[in-house]
Amino acid sequence: MTTTARFDPRDFRQALGRFATGVTIVTTRAADGTPVGMTANSFNSVSMNPPMVLWSLARSARSLPAFTQATHWNVHILANDQEALSNRFAKAGEDKFTGLALDNSPGGAPLIPDCSARFQCRTAFQYEGGDHIIFVGEVMDFDRSERAPLVFVTGGYALATRLAGDISTAPQAQTDAAPYSENLLGYLLGRAHYQFMAGFRPTLEARGLSETDFFILSLLAVRSPLTAAEIASHMAYTGVDVGAATLGRLCTRGLLSAGEAGFELSPQGRDDILHVMAAAKAREAELLDQMGPLEAASLRNLLKRLIAVSDPGLPPLWA
Amino acid sequence: MTTTARFDPRDFRQALGRFATGVTIVTTRAADGTPVGMTANSFNSVSMNPPMVLWSLARSARSLPAFTQATHWNVHILANDQEALSNRFAKAGEDKFTGLALDNSPGGAPLIPDCSARFQCRTAFQYEGGDHIIFVGEVMDFDRSERAPLVFVTGGYALATRLAGDISTAPQAQTDAAPYSENLLGYLLGRAHYQFMAGFRPTLEARGLSETDFFILSLLAVRSPLTAAEIASHMAYTGVDVGAATLGRLCTRGLLSAGEAGFELSPQGRDDILHVMAAAKAREAELLDQMGPLEAASLRNLLKRLIAVSDPGLPPLWA
Repeated sequence: MTTTARFDPRDFRQALGRFATGVTIVTTRAADGTPVGMTANSFNSVSMNPPMVLWSLARSARSLPAFTQATHWNVHILANDQEALSNRFAKAGEDKFTGLALDNSPGGAPLIPDCSARFQCRTAFQYEGGDHIIFVGEVMDFDRSERAPLVFVTGGYALATRLAGDISTAPQAQTDAAPYSENLLGYLLGRAHYQFMAGFRPTLEARGLSETDFFILSLLAVRSPLTAAEIASHMAYTGVDVGAATLGRLCTRGLLSAGEAGFELSPQGRDDILHVMAAAKAREAELLDQMGPLEAASLRNLLKRLIAVSDPGLPPLWA
Repeated sequence: MTTTARFDPRDFRQALGRFATGVTIVTTRAADGTPVGMTANSFNSVSMNPPMVLWSLARSARSLPAFTQATHWNVHILANDQEALSNRFAKAGEDKFTGLALDNSPGGAPLIPDCSARFQCRTAFQYEGGDHIIFVGEVMDFDRSERAPLVFVTGGYALATRLAGDISTAPQAQTDAAPYSENLLGYLLGRAHYQFMAGFRPTLEARGLSETDFFILSLLAVRSPLTAAEIASHMAYTGVDVGAATLGRLCTRGLLSAGEAGFELSPQGRDDILHVMAAAKAREAELLDQMGPLEAASLRNLLKRLIAVSDPGLPPLWA
């Protein structure tokens, strides 16, 4: 650890940023009825009985008078897809509430829809906290949804995923017994890939398609026509060597047609790949349903990062 | 959203749990010098100038007198591998500090090593907060490490991973143009798997090993001897059909030896697989270095979950 003798504000902020938080928008109405709101991550729970929460606001904030005079305010815990809303309410001066279908709050403060949870509060205390005021509110009502919450940590937005099993960022211990462990990423990727495929391989086999056939048909389903050389360059990273013989066989079977611009799917080939993809999507839905939507989004996110850092320079597939 | 008219404490807790937090341990010394500490996630930053933080403690907590009488306390933001420490300090009655190499804090409060960040505080205010007391401390010193922080959300520990690109838990939009998108999990898994393998395929080729050869050798490197039937049953989910001809060819090439109990690696086979695995591990290190340790841990975590939910009932590989 680096001990910081003097207080550099940036250093202090970075140290505070090690504490993960959710992201909230706190709203109230000014004395003239104008809706006021701002993004805050200084929220936390305080008391169960009476139910109380707190958050703090800079003395220099433009919205300070509205909040110090208000008897009621609402805290909205943002969902993982409300990053844009968080950014909108973090900036000054805009008409932040434009386009929002506000719900009614008995206390009068604006109530924003589609959040992960919401707390309607009555001001209980306002306390001094250095250059901030600490607002403690009694929770008069609350609700929550199944939307997974947004997370803010080390200066950026994040997704949180529940820990499953033995996970550590420490270096992998190596035993003498085996040359690799079940933590080897290559093993996990291969096993996950093949187990996923095993769920729709019967559909491939029913249509007499090999894995190589499947790769070629699914490539041409997204991008066609492609020349033999283009198909080979799209496929090389899989280790499958697609040559004239393979493409000729698929033409003979009536799955591809060859024109001047290259190969494309025949109606039969398109029908085959649509059925295989339907089976792949059913497999995906079944597995993601068991994993949960946030884990699914995180897994996609991390696979995309891995693909980006391991990309051998593949031509883009989607326009 | 489900509006909750009456306040069920469990409902209220679940709604509060939508707000993600880090996990801290707050420590002090009782009047008799005994070290006191407890896990808290009610921490947050308050003020930049003067630097101040806050947390709250139940009036019913056994450690309340120690904290109300203390002039100094330390807040430790736990790292992602300190879940056990969090659990230890969340329970009452144990000698929580046993075995910890405590650092010195000028204020006298215990300072726990290996955290993500630490704040050494002097009590500034103690405020009423319903059934809790809110402690506001002036930060006298702080430090931080590069250890990624632990996250607590919706009632459990979690890892947070930075968002990379367009991620949403909303249902995938389907365009008419292509039968699948780059969000199809099967596509992402396949592409990540093959791009990973592409990084060490030259090592396979240099040793004249096909992908099937590689799968068989790596299986026997972890578990052997195995009969032909056992090898086939371990491999079936990959779609690779391992029969007597393939195994016989590997024996002829001197990579396997066949005994009464089944097949095992020959010295040459073991040498080959060790070299291939070294290349795979180098590939892993290179990619994970670009992704970062926390993303790597999260990716492993999520792949393990996917493997668990898609497991066709494979025999366990590691004892």
